[in-house]
Amino acid sequence: MNDTTLKSIAKSLVPENYLALANDARQERDKQIKVLLEQRKLPLSGWSEPMIEYMISELALLDTNNFPSRCGVGEREGRVICDLVRRRHYNFAHGIGRSGNLMDAQPKAAGSTIMSNLTNNLVRDLICSIGIPTCTKAIVVPLATGMTVMLTLRAIHSKRPTSRFVLWSRVDQQSCFKSIVAAGLTPVIIDSLLASECCETDRTQTQHEPVSTFATDVVAFETKIQELGAEHICCILSTTSCFAPRSSDDLGALSKLCQNYDIPHVVNNAYGLQSSYFCHQLNQGSRVGRIDAFIQSTDKNLLVPVGGAIVAGFQNDTVETVARLYPGRASCSQSLDVLMTLLSLGLTGYRELMKTRQEMHQMLLEGLTELAKTHNERVLPCRNPISIAMSLGTFQTSSCRLEVIGSMLQKRGVSGCRIVSTADSKTIDGHSFLRWGSHSSRTTVPYLTASVSLGIERKEVTIFLAKLDEVLRKYRTKCMGA
Amino acid sequence: MNDTTLKSIAKSLVPENYLALANDARQERDKQIKVLLEQRKLPLSGWSEPMIEYMISELALLDTNNFPSRCGVGEREGRVICDLVRRRHYNFAHGIGRSGNLMDAQPKAAGSTIMSNLTNNLVRDLICSIGIPTCTKAIVVPLATGMTVMLTLRAIHSKRPTSRFVLWSRVDQQSCFKSIVAAGLTPVIIDSLLASECCETDRTQTQHEPVSTFATDVVAFETKIQELGAEHICCILSTTSCFAPRSSDDLGALSKLCQNYDIPHVVNNAYGLQSSYFCHQLNQGSRVGRIDAFIQSTDKNLLVPVGGAIVAGFQNDTVETVARLYPGRASCSQSLDVLMTLLSLGLTGYRELMKTRQEMHQMLLEGLTELAKTHNERVLPCRNPISIAMSLGTFQTSSCRLEVIGSMLQKRGVSGCRIVSTADSKTIDGHSFLRWGSHSSRTTVPYLTASVSLGIERKEVTIFLAKLDEVLRKYRTKCMGA
Amino acid sequence: MNDTTLKSIAKSLVPENYLALANDARQERDKQIKVLLEQRKLPLSGWSEPMIEYMISELALLDTNNFPSRCGVGEREGRVICDLVRRRHYNFAHGIGRSGNLMDAQPKAAGSTIMSNLTNNLVRDLICSIGIPTCTKAIVVPLATGMTVMLTLRAIHSKRPTSRFVLWSRVDQQSCFKSIVAAGLTPVIIDSLLASECCETDRTQTQHEPVSTFATDVVAFETKIQELGAEHICCILSTTSCFAPRSSDDLGALSKLCQNYDIPHVVNNAYGLQSSYFCHQLNQGSRVGRIDAFIQSTDKNLLVPVGGAIVAGFQNDTVETVARLYPGRASCSQSLDVLMTLLSLGLTGYRELMKTRQEMHQMLLEGLTELAKTHNERVLPCRNPISIAMSLGTFQTSSCRLEVIGSMLQKRGVSGCRIVSTADSKTIDGHSFLRWGSHSSRTTVPYLTASVSLGIERKEVTIFLAKLDEVLRKYRTKCMGA
Amino acid sequence: MNDTTLKSIAKSLVPENYLALANDARQERDKQIKVLLEQRKLPLSGWSEPMIEYMISELALLDTNNFPSRCGVGEREGRVICDLVRRRHYNFAHGIGRSGNLMDAQPKAAGSTIMSNLTNNLVRDLICSIGIPTCTKAIVVPLATGMTVMLTLRAIHSKRPTSRFVLWSRVDQQSCFKSIVAAGLTPVIIDSLLASECCETDRTQTQHEPVSTFATDVVAFETKIQELGAEHICCILSTTSCFAPRSSDDLGALSKLCQNYDIPHVVNNAYGLQSSYFCHQLNQGSRVGRIDAFIQSTDKNLLVPVGGAIVAGFQNDTVETVARLYPGRASCSQSLDVLMTLLSLGLTGYRELMKTRQEMHQMLLEGLTELAKTHNERVLPCRNPISIAMSLGTFQTSSCRLEVIGSMLQKRGVSGCRIVSTADSKTIDGHSFLRWGSHSSRTTVPYLTASVSLGIERKEVTIFLAKLDEVLRKYRTKCMGA
Repeated sequence: MNDTTLKSIAKSLVPENYLALANDARQERDKQIKVLLEQRKLPLSGWSEPMIEYMISELALLDTNNFPSRCGVGEREGRVICDLVRRRHYNFAHGIGRSGNLMDAQPKAAGSTIMSNLTNNLVRDLICSIGIPTCTKAIVVPLATGMTVMLTLRAIHSKRPTSRFVLWSRVDQQSCFKSIVAAGLTPVIIDSLLASECCETDRTQTQHEPVSTFATDVVAFETKIQELGAEHICCILSTTSCFAPRSSDDLGALSKLCQNYDIPHVVNNAYGLQSSYFCHQLNQGSRVGRIDAFIQSTDKNLLVPVGGAIVAGFQNDTVETVARLYPGRASCSQSLDVLMTLLSLGLTGYRELMKTRQEMHQMLLEGLTELAKTHNERVLPCRNPISIAMSLGTFQTSSCRLEVIGSMLQKRGVSGCRIVSTADSKTIDGHSFLRWGSHSSRTTVPYLTASVSLGIERKEVTIFLAKLDEVLRKYRTKCMGA
Repeated sequence: MNDTTLKSIAKSLVPENYLALANDARQERDKQIKVLLEQRKLPLSGWSEPMIEYMISELALLDTNNFPSRCGVGEREGRVICDLVRRRHYNFAHGIGRSGNLMDAQPKAAGSTIMSNLTNNLVRDLICSIGIPTCTKAIVVPLATGMTVMLTLRAIHSKRPTSRFVLWSRVDQQSCFKSIVAAGLTPVIIDSLLASECCETDRTQTQHEPVSTFATDVVAFETKIQELGAEHICCILSTTSCFAPRSSDDLGALSKLCQNYDIPHVVNNAYGLQSSYFCHQLNQGSRVGRIDAFIQSTDKNLLVPVGGAIVAGFQNDTVETVARLYPGRASCSQSLDVLMTLLSLGLTGYRELMKTRQEMHQMLLEGLTELAKTHNERVLPCRNPISIAMSLGTFQTSSCRLEVIGSMLQKRGVSGCRIVSTADSKTIDGHSFLRWGSHSSRTTVPYLTASVSLGIERKEVTIFLAKLDEVLRKYRTKCMGA
Repeated sequence: MNDTTLKSIAKSLVPENYLALANDARQERDKQIKVLLEQRKLPLSGWSEPMIEYMISELALLDTNNFPSRCGVGEREGRVICDLVRRRHYNFAHGIGRSGNLMDAQPKAAGSTIMSNLTNNLVRDLICSIGIPTCTKAIVVPLATGMTVMLTLRAIHSKRPTSRFVLWSRVDQQSCFKSIVAAGLTPVIIDSLLASECCETDRTQTQHEPVSTFATDVVAFETKIQELGAEHICCILSTTSCFAPRSSDDLGALSKLCQNYDIPHVVNNAYGLQSSYFCHQLNQGSRVGRIDAFIQSTDKNLLVPVGGAIVAGFQNDTVETVARLYPGRASCSQSLDVLMTLLSLGLTGYRELMKTRQEMHQMLLEGLTELAKTHNERVLPCRNPISIAMSLGTFQTSSCRLEVIGSMLQKRGVSGCRIVSTADSKTIDGHSFLRWGSHSSRTTVPYLTASVSLGIERKEVTIFLAKLDEVLRKYRTKCMGA
Repeated sequence: MNDTTLKSIAKSLVPENYLALANDARQERDKQIKVLLEQRKLPLSGWSEPMIEYMISELALLDTNNFPSRCGVGEREGRVICDLVRRRHYNFAHGIGRSGNLMDAQPKAAGSTIMSNLTNNLVRDLICSIGIPTCTKAIVVPLATGMTVMLTLRAIHSKRPTSRFVLWSRVDQQSCFKSIVAAGLTPVIIDSLLASECCETDRTQTQHEPVSTFATDVVAFETKIQELGAEHICCILSTTSCFAPRSSDDLGALSKLCQNYDIPHVVNNAYGLQSSYFCHQLNQGSRVGRIDAFIQSTDKNLLVPVGGAIVAGFQNDTVETVARLYPGRASCSQSLDVLMTLLSLGLTGYRELMKTRQEMHQMLLEGLTELAKTHNERVLPCRNPISIAMSLGTFQTSSCRLEVIGSMLQKRGVSGCRIVSTADSKTIDGHSFLRWGSHSSRTTVPYLTASVSLGIERKEVTIFLAKLDEVLRKYRTKCMGA
């Protein structure tokens, strides 16, 4: 309702002074929206649902498909025939982007355009605020992480058309590896260093065989670069968030390497935004060396349904190149999810989620360390702020497969706990991975991993610890006769 | 969003010319809302869902419970704790009315006030447009019809405190009768005249015993008035819509009687708005005599969920008296349902519903007349534009109760078909009704009734005719060995 | 989906073992619903939104209007034409009750019937659990409190048809008084006793003129009973929750009086369920004497939109009598709101709300006591667990009306703070009330009241205290030149 | 609710016989769902909204994120923190596919898996039913058309890793061309033949310069194949739906060519499903030659918001290859939109949309032919069932650009009408297109195009014709002084 309409409300419908009071509140609400649209900064406090829906609805009404009198003779007019569908998309229908560029404004969809651009601005503001102030650009891409990595590789390749190789420190997460292959590029797999060291959480567990911690084999990277020739290398693809006992790649060293050899550097930061440690790594990497883009999922970092990713970058045009490579229009559904989520949380809300997650991680770490001790196992040493690995060496037996532990947990309502027996190998698109799942061909200790992700509740941690204890005891009784 | 906000949208979010086009559409939309709020007339064409929700949402945001910064230290602050509930009420929480008057504006709820008053205006406009142009006032009351009749009787009684009786032409619909008793008044039941006449649909069915048609016994009414004394009569309560073979009371004659004896006249027009015939009767009654108020349900006439009624009136203050009698606040849910429905239909939409209903009634009448003939029965003569009665005389048998026909239909998915055996009597609050269900102590022919109500679909009529034929055949085979 | 359907899901759509796991969760969910439907007790923990909607949707599908093949030839078939309306009512359309009884099952609406009965059961369980274990019956009535009191009075009158009077201890809340008049009964107003006593919060404020606390004038009640004759008294209507400095009527004494003289006793417990103190009073009253019914709003006690009330009772049939008096069907919207709210809160959730409210009340009491002191005023002594009154004696001046303080607060976003100047009188339906607003014709001290109602947030208390201080200072400067 | 739960409903909540009737309806509803899940065929008649939501909700509850007791220690647990987001996705959060395959079942998401697979089945059934019975496989991909073409090209390239070229009959739609480049392949552009022929609609317009119709230059294609070597050609990318005066490529001839030379053949059928003519072309092509996959958008063909595409194929594994190439998970939002839309329409509903569209196309063709005559122009000859082109030769003038006509239409609420002046050229990724927009470097006549797409309303056609006439007259007056 514009101001004239409000003023036209018949006195017979409501007394003027009541309306005046309501109008004051209206001004206050509109001022917040005005500030948001002008400054494009994530509000400190979250907004109420009615206020979020108010703004979203108004934006949608700016798109042609919602114009009161429409006359559409194009091939795409944003018609939505099923009311259920129309409603759930808040009357948005045109998607985002144009044939030439994912970030281009659409003449038929001013509202969608504003919505999408605003989301990108807020995402960048969030990234800057939680630990990566050097980030200059971020866009929400309506593709999940794997596909987004693929798109980014293709965008980088478009500027280095004669390059072929992607150097990649092995991490046993299939879709990341597939992204390289799907992009038509050749992965060069570099195994991690396994240094025998003893981290803090391990100090008291001296009765075990020595366990090694992962480290990026920077020397092997450099050797490969020299061997293949920097100009034939499309980029280095490094990883932050991953399953323990692997930890983040050494972003600082790889970034410097990339700068020295003038090789693009893409970081797969899949679920790393939720951890201030990973954010710090990225920020440092960008300062001491070269990072062209870092990619993360919207679902894991912003707690929305699967389907989107964020491509963010620093002082170079990689993000724009990705946006420009994208052929055709795209769904605005992911941007809308992100926008509503960010506005409902506010910066404070997001920071609280991060803080709680960190506390829960500490709680699980202590709980598992304790539990491991009672089962004569230990938590594997590593610097991984999200995932924790606990050895299962004493549970190996010929009568049962260790995977049974996973099934037993699942039956008890526990999801997400992975058992890695280090016994299996796997071949993906012609590349074979020895001891698949363990991130290294050299590890031998079987283990389980559990993660503390954003949004986890305290009771999930306590229930997990209780169920795990129960299952391990049952497993020992049942499979090992103990 | 007010105009300043729109203008403040950063150029980096959307190009100015795209926004200008969108703003044109916005002006167009707001103009329609402006016209509605200024003129308070039902739009000719229905509005789209997004547009209805746009206006409703804006209105709700004018209520204090939706103010961005709230500080409530009253005993009622419109807090809604369950989001599911809040959402389904479009953020409205304060209800309508104040302690003194159902139509009073609420200082805390400018939006609810506008919404409710606007609805009342549109309802009156609808009533005027479909056949009762003499109507001057109408309000939506969040009470179903029976309770609304009770409230209206109490309002009328408050101005005639020494009166005790309500004169009522018998109609076997329990809640209407109970309204009188619940109001603390004494019903005086006047049986209908049963004139032996032969209406058109009956012409060919001469082999049957003569069937009588119902007529209001106006003479008996006048005799009762003289017997009890006009000043002791609270009002006459007459009826339009009812089950065949009863038809509408003679509103003209009763209205004249009321005018002559200075007795209030309330019409129970329960589901009569949907029929232009009943609307015409009401309009005529108000012109030739006295009608203080006519009451109808919102569910049957406007196809919303059960729970509301409309009290409408002519050149007197009965409607206001009802509103003023209402103690305390009331739900605004019914007004909201009516508003959304009226806006989505528009006057044209409502008229189309009426027209279709009339066509379907003709179709059912013809179908039943035909069917009756094949079963050696007939459609009972009467002037009832909604309900049709078909005799079941040849189905009477000692081995089965006629009600079995009803159950058989129900099992086949037919709802609403009533079987009247004329064999039962009933006592309600001390008053006994001989041959309950038949509206008269003098009828003898058993029958079934079927109605064609607003919103019926063509396939419902055809399926009913088919199922009825099937059931009647089965019943004869099973219960009568034929 | 019934079990056969689930089993029929093609293996090509999903592997059997994945489905098996999902089915386990489904069984768990259904078990909770089963327990609810069997035991009809409020769950301890609140349910998630998807689970609430799951059950509600299933119930709605049991109503005929949602049957896949419908064929309706009745006058009311639950058709809802506007999708927006249908959706917001979760496909419920038939309302609750039948012509004879608000609690009767509807043949066309098994789902609505279950829903409404279940709600009534849960409400009774809640009432029993929070302090009134002697309660035996409770129903949600789709009428706000005033109208419900009126209906209850009429129900009681229907069993005492020759009675005329309602004895009522004055409380200046208009709709309660209007309920009596609207019911066609004659109110007999009995002023409170004003005892000069000094309660705890007043101890330090000895410099002021003596302030009296309210007490029910039980002797006056008994005198009136004897004067009018118990058989001419329809009932005593007492009050619990009200604005300070009035406090709850002496339920114990009035209940005993009612038992002794065999007079029905109705308690207006408008927003009293939220306070364990009022619950305790009711429980005690029912044990030592006679309480026929106690009535409270759903909006203030259960934080739903305005429109419903709860009639609850003890070992007698008053609640049933009310239900049976109700003529016709009624909206099920209020029951649905209550059901969704109760399930989302659980008993624990409701108790937490009560606890927080009590803490906030203490906080406001302390804050106001402090603030009063700085302004040379005091908190008026009374035992009112919800509302607090602070004197404004030193603010009286000829240049401004005290009501200006109220407007100034409202402009600053504070709602619900009432200013009582004790200067005004009011006439309602022929009865005049001296010093309207102050509950007594004998009070002289002007004051303001603020309430701490269910759902209040901490920040509302702190903001109110700050704004009040600011306003009082400004008022003094502006109106009193100080 | 499973069957046991229903049976456990306390008798005190609802009478058994009422529940029995409701249960019959429940069985009927479940039977329809059972048939759908077993046969996976698009129902003939559309389903009601409550029924669609009933099934969707039940499916969502099979996903782990909706399990009553959850304990998630994975890195992705489908948590959705913003209620607005959760609700609009019907509680689905896990997306579809696994790292290895877009069609793989997810252990954590049985419901999403069923939903997605069911959608794919229904889409295939629709395609088979409306004219392409030879189609054996179809999947909904959560990528818009351009990106889907790119993915398909990459999938095909993965099996022909040494190929480099994509042969493409020029069509001036940017995102299609960009798909080739983004896939890292080299487009080989082959201009259409422009045959001077005179089609039916042109017969009476003999006063004009001869206009040529487009035809696929099959000979040029064959020459290129021989020149480049079949093994170096990744595929031929042909086009069906496009803007007039271009018409569909000669699918029959190209399919035969592909078969003969063993070259994959991908058809960009962007908005072609809505036309039975294009469906027929595809079916014929697959029968006489080779088509590996045909790709179409979900938004234009199924009237859902932008964001999805369908990859469909015949007797080969291209569709599976595409699904397997997709790295990682993907949004299930597009599948959900398609599922709800298809169920709400039913096959009959979709066929009616197609029929109406065809009628509206005929209406616009006749209207434009008439209008052209009055302006001394003509409709350009071509066989395009969706788009129509009208010459603007007599409007060329030095004082105004022809594009002004477009802006004037837009200002009058007409969207989608394109003006092609044939004066501009464009360079995309190093490839220059002479006379961009006209699909050919050899055309000279300026023209406008208007399309009749699925879902168009009659009034849109009539309004367009009126506005166009008005605009052309104004343009002539203003720019040409006539």
